[in-house]
Amino acid sequence: MKFPEESLWLIGRISEKLMARNIRLGTAESCSGGLASVLCTSIPGSSRWFAGAVVAYANSVKTGVLGVDKALIDNHGAVSGPVVEAMAGGALRVLGVRVSLAVSGIAGPEGGTANKPVGTVWIATAVYPEACPDGHAANEPVLRSFCRHFPGFRDDVRFGAALAALEAVDLALA
Amino acid sequence: MKFPEESLWLIGRISEKLMARNIRLGTAESCSGGLASVLCTSIPGSSRWFAGAVVAYANSVKTGVLGVDKALIDNHGAVSGPVVEAMAGGALRVLGVRVSLAVSGIAGPEGGTANKPVGTVWIATAVYPEACPDGHAANEPVLRSFCRHFPGFRDDVRFGAALAALEAVDLALA
Repeated sequence: MKFPEESLWLIGRISEKLMARNIRLGTAESCSGGLASVLCTSIPGSSRWFAGAVVAYANSVKTGVLGVDKALIDNHGAVSGPVVEAMAGGALRVLGVRVSLAVSGIAGPEGGTANKPVGTVWIATAVYPEACPDGHAANEPVLRSFCRHFPGFRDDVRFGAALAALEAVDLALA
Repeated sequence: MKFPEESLWLIGRISEKLMARNIRLGTAESCSGGLASVLCTSIPGSSRWFAGAVVAYANSVKTGVLGVDKALIDNHGAVSGPVVEAMAGGALRVLGVRVSLAVSGIAGPEGGTANKPVGTVWIATAVYPEACPDGHAANEPVLRSFCRHFPGFRDDVRFGAALAALEAVDLALA
């Protein structure tokens, strides 16, 4: 199993930023199934900056392990900005890290709707302020989320989602 | 990213057994970084039988999230039978599943010792008795663990470990 060279460069950049600040990353993943975590741990020495992941495939894991409020899922759906932000915030707390990413989407081929077709993915990052020197005052994590649509088949959506989430982490640590 | 055909057959077999019993699988992974979870979720409809994963790369995640007793890690090392059995038991509880696997090993190139060279991997399965009709009496999960040595590079060890753990789940559900 080989990963594209570009993804290894991206992981390399992220790892250098994290090690320079002496902080660790964790991931909270639904549709990507742990692929962001697998990519992070594919390079030697990743235990120095990668703590772990919660793959919250079932909604019960999103609520029970990551602490996502069930009302957020009921009101916005599992594939939504509020839910991925809550997943990313939960990952900080549960995994004891200063930076996290979260991914929730519809990888297909089933599960698509008119509003959220197959390929729809919500991504969030959560970064504690000292890791993100942009003047954010309180000791609360900075949460950001966005939606992307990935074309192609199940594997394309999953891999695209994992890469986009890692790119967002790279940007959040810029 | 393509997975070998044999791994997809294996996942297919496991999924049929789980769905026939109406139970779900979860994984607790260290060196494999979530690869068993990625393999499980690579096939459509996996949410019907796969709940999620805890990638416990850091020991703090093994203890804090999976509830592994720190004394087990101190006494036996993170790559040991007692620790993978505790990880698998923790995954049942934390992920709310009836079947789990756990993987902890030394993927390399660093981290090997004389007693536990690179490629050493401990694997465990945990299965609640009704999912494993072998006469086990109490309502306690059946825990089994074994050690394997995988040749090759980091990716070979990780992929070999994930596949072997899934094969053990297939066997435990036989």
